[in-house]
Amino acid sequence: MSEARLIYLPLGGAGEIGMNCYVYGYGPEGRERLIVVDLGVTFPDMETTPGVELILPDISWLEARADRIDAIFLTHAHEDHVGALGHLWPKLRAQVYCRCFTGVIAKLKLEEHGHPGTAVTVVEPRPEAVQVGPFRVQFQPVAHSIPESSALIIDTPAGRIFHSGDFKLDPGPVVGEPHDPKAMAEIGAEGVKVLTCDSTNVFNTHEGRSESTLAEPLRDLVAAAPGMVVATTFASNVARLVTLAQAGHAAGRSVCLLGRAMKRMVAAAEESGVLPAFPPIIPPEAAVEVPRQNLMLIVTGSQGERRAATAQLSRGKYLGLEMKEGDTFLFSSKTIPGNERGVIRIMNAFSERGVEVVDDHGGLYHVSGHANRPDLERVQEALKPQIVIPMHGEHRHLRAHARLAEARGRISEVATNGMMLDLTGDVPKVAEYIETSRVYLDGTAMVGAMDGVIRDRLRMGMNGLVLVTLILDEDDQPLGEAWAELLGLPKTGRTGRNFAEVLEADLAEFLDRVDARTLRDDDRLDEALRRLVRQVAVEEVGKKPEVTVVLSRLSAE
Amino acid sequence: MSEARLIYLPLGGAGEIGMNCYVYGYGPEGRERLIVVDLGVTFPDMETTPGVELILPDISWLEARADRIDAIFLTHAHEDHVGALGHLWPKLRAQVYCRCFTGVIAKLKLEEHGHPGTAVTVVEPRPEAVQVGPFRVQFQPVAHSIPESSALIIDTPAGRIFHSGDFKLDPGPVVGEPHDPKAMAEIGAEGVKVLTCDSTNVFNTHEGRSESTLAEPLRDLVAAAPGMVVATTFASNVARLVTLAQAGHAAGRSVCLLGRAMKRMVAAAEESGVLPAFPPIIPPEAAVEVPRQNLMLIVTGSQGERRAATAQLSRGKYLGLEMKEGDTFLFSSKTIPGNERGVIRIMNAFSERGVEVVDDHGGLYHVSGHANRPDLERVQEALKPQIVIPMHGEHRHLRAHARLAEARGRISEVATNGMMLDLTGDVPKVAEYIETSRVYLDGTAMVGAMDGVIRDRLRMGMNGLVLVTLILDEDDQPLGEAWAELLGLPKTGRTGRNFAEVLEADLAEFLDRVDARTLRDDDRLDEALRRLVRQVAVEEVGKKPEVTVVLSRLSAE
Repeated sequence: MSEARLIYLPLGGAGEIGMNCYVYGYGPEGRERLIVVDLGVTFPDMETTPGVELILPDISWLEARADRIDAIFLTHAHEDHVGALGHLWPKLRAQVYCRCFTGVIAKLKLEEHGHPGTAVTVVEPRPEAVQVGPFRVQFQPVAHSIPESSALIIDTPAGRIFHSGDFKLDPGPVVGEPHDPKAMAEIGAEGVKVLTCDSTNVFNTHEGRSESTLAEPLRDLVAAAPGMVVATTFASNVARLVTLAQAGHAAGRSVCLLGRAMKRMVAAAEESGVLPAFPPIIPPEAAVEVPRQNLMLIVTGSQGERRAATAQLSRGKYLGLEMKEGDTFLFSSKTIPGNERGVIRIMNAFSERGVEVVDDHGGLYHVSGHANRPDLERVQEALKPQIVIPMHGEHRHLRAHARLAEARGRISEVATNGMMLDLTGDVPKVAEYIETSRVYLDGTAMVGAMDGVIRDRLRMGMNGLVLVTLILDEDDQPLGEAWAELLGLPKTGRTGRNFAEVLEADLAEFLDRVDARTLRDDDRLDEALRRLVRQVAVEEVGKKPEVTVVLSRLSAE
Repeated sequence: MSEARLIYLPLGGAGEIGMNCYVYGYGPEGRERLIVVDLGVTFPDMETTPGVELILPDISWLEARADRIDAIFLTHAHEDHVGALGHLWPKLRAQVYCRCFTGVIAKLKLEEHGHPGTAVTVVEPRPEAVQVGPFRVQFQPVAHSIPESSALIIDTPAGRIFHSGDFKLDPGPVVGEPHDPKAMAEIGAEGVKVLTCDSTNVFNTHEGRSESTLAEPLRDLVAAAPGMVVATTFASNVARLVTLAQAGHAAGRSVCLLGRAMKRMVAAAEESGVLPAFPPIIPPEAAVEVPRQNLMLIVTGSQGERRAATAQLSRGKYLGLEMKEGDTFLFSSKTIPGNERGVIRIMNAFSERGVEVVDDHGGLYHVSGHANRPDLERVQEALKPQIVIPMHGEHRHLRAHARLAEARGRISEVATNGMMLDLTGDVPKVAEYIETSRVYLDGTAMVGAMDGVIRDRLRMGMNGLVLVTLILDEDDQPLGEAWAELLGLPKTGRTGRNFAEVLEADLAEFLDRVDARTLRDDDRLDEALRRLVRQVAVEEVGKKPEVTVVLSRLSAE
């Protein structure tokens, strides 16, 4: 029997920001007991995944080994850590462990998909521990932009792993536990073999700023604003909601929350008892009656999402409320790369309405929830890990983070999704490369990233489609003309003639002279018609469209 | 006969960054003589204009009045000011006036499209003047990120307009004339009625920095880099090319330019005599023989364009050259909003190759070519215009710029594309709203933004397409089954069955029970089949696909 080994396998989040999913295993090779940390999603974009709802990690490797999974741990309730739970849990069916606030969200996600909420076990933070198989796991509270974010202390027979989750070193996080240097030092003193660590902000060379620094600037901004004030931030940033609401309340304004996600998060915070004194909230029906200079709205949609409250307000009336000349709209948020165009569109729509738009202004009205480079250094100093494995970041983040660790004399290794590391010895070794990809939730169906479905959509979206229909009679002779229908293509081409008619004339001419062998053979005919259409299209409109040929043979009936 | 009036009509660039096109007119209403300033393009994106090559201003208003156009003036050779010239000139056929460097580019653009290069007249800067109709126009050199950028001094019987073009107040622009405060004061002293002014950087509250400040940091960076150094910037930023090449040369490196646009711009700069001492350049064939620590490449593709040299190098070998561990790639550029994902993808590809990626680092390796807020204030002080009309900017920029002018006691008006202002009196008046839009160059065809062609492509790209084919016999009875073909849709749905087969079964069932009246009526049948397909699709895959029904009636033959 082979020696037991300790393995680490990222299935999402290592090589990207978002879609976090990490696996640890301990035991003899091929028979390791496994735990899963986080089941997150990432979001689609028009450039690569048009029409897709959500992007999930490809967990086929885990699914094939579901009997070896002892537990799923959730570090916190952000979508990129729990968003895939409802979709993927039935493939794993392991018990889910997390803290209370995360548990409220996790249960909702399971139950929405018809799975039992009892699959979630709520755990108190360290020193409480969960023993599952060879793993003893404790939740160490860390500050982040959502309540009850946690690092995981994972003790194994091969040593201790500190899995950071998403975190910052915030002495005043407004909601939840402040950074606890003493606890970190204790954990380090007990000996940390591996630090698996958040890398998203490794390029930020300034020390991270505290959530509590925003209270004063936000209070000043809201107090000085003449008309209605509307602020947006991530709904899950409960601390920010509190700070914004308090700023509104301090300025004598009634505060109203808009957006489903906002209300759900506040309810979850209340249910789990993490919500501090929140100023009284009025419903939208009451808000419409409040004079605008006495009103503050806190709304969803900071990333420009088209259906969220921010976008709705930029377009006009929303739930009876409307922004006007002299009102102020505040983005208490950072625009995630890729969302700039949508956010800018909204800013301009507000500008057209005469609304004053304020964004984070170099950090005055927003701070990040992640540890910056000096903070990452401090964590390494406190925990003194032998090995640093950067996680949660694009390749460039992981690489820079590994360099940072190496510069301080630690061993580090860049492991991206699908790269299994053996962490048993003093130096991490690449054990195996797992084939892994992404899964798209498209409508309600699951589609593999490599299935070609989205590729076909992208091609139609870029190139347009020509649809050719031809009926052949019992003698394999064309019955009437071939038809060409254009979808998403210019109606007239270079010659100024109708493009579909030019195509049909050229198809007719082709069918006049085509040999009998081609007419008898579906594949040959299809190929010949496609080639012809592409060639004519290039001449007429300078594009190579997608072509679909529908042949109907009456003889086949 | 009505009084003569002075009008201003932006057709592009006012309400957006890019696609600059402005019209001035003087004369009796409806019979004004017209001049056009700039004919620029803007660039498509996957979110709104997939597969489109270029976006051009809709100049139908001008086209209908081509006989009244006395001239086209070009302020400088950036694509967002001259990119539409080759496409749109034949609709206007007016003489084109510009400075020498711009003229080289403008002639190329005309000749590429088969139009005469003689349509371009090269003009020397102020005090030389062009008299066309009621307009006397002088080119006032301004500093910008391309050689020979110019403001236009447009004297009319109703007063002087200073049309800023794109500019910054740079005392050391490396290539071309430095900012000339004395000239500006003189022009102002002669009396400026209207300042039409670049607004792109109005939100930047710092004084603009000079191109010349980059020489030292770039020299230090290149000198300290261990391996090959590759730098990208906009090809048209000839000053930056010079600074980069000099940094390479100073470090004892051979310098090689890669990318067609790069070579074209350097050739244009040479031809027009604006290129100062450029270090010797070696061709790619020679570059492959140079040891990497002695080599510097300057390449196209700073915005992540997939076919440009930067993207090619991130994917592997390009013209025999390949980046490796220890090499440095420098983005001496700013990423334009919307291009972030593409640029980040390239940064990560370089990271995977072990290449050190350096970006502008808070301005150390890049400066903007546009005037910041304090610079805009200085220009107003120098020119002392009665009226400030903000141009070249999104709505939020125009609005903030107008506020800036008003705060200094000037009259201002936000005029967006299609909004004609009467500038005859002391206060600008809105004269008319012109219906204007955008035109897409799609392949080689022109498509109106409102024609629905791109909308159809977007829908197919988002929703996928179901193609239904049905043949009806002489008695309006289905001949065989209806077929369903899926394009860009999941192959299996909720039930786990083949989605196309589910559709075909439901179509068969529908055709069994459908009434004769529907079968006889193409529109009714088409509508009923579409509705059925959408309904089944929502049930099976949770999506509403596009549906195209092809009905073939044998009786119709």
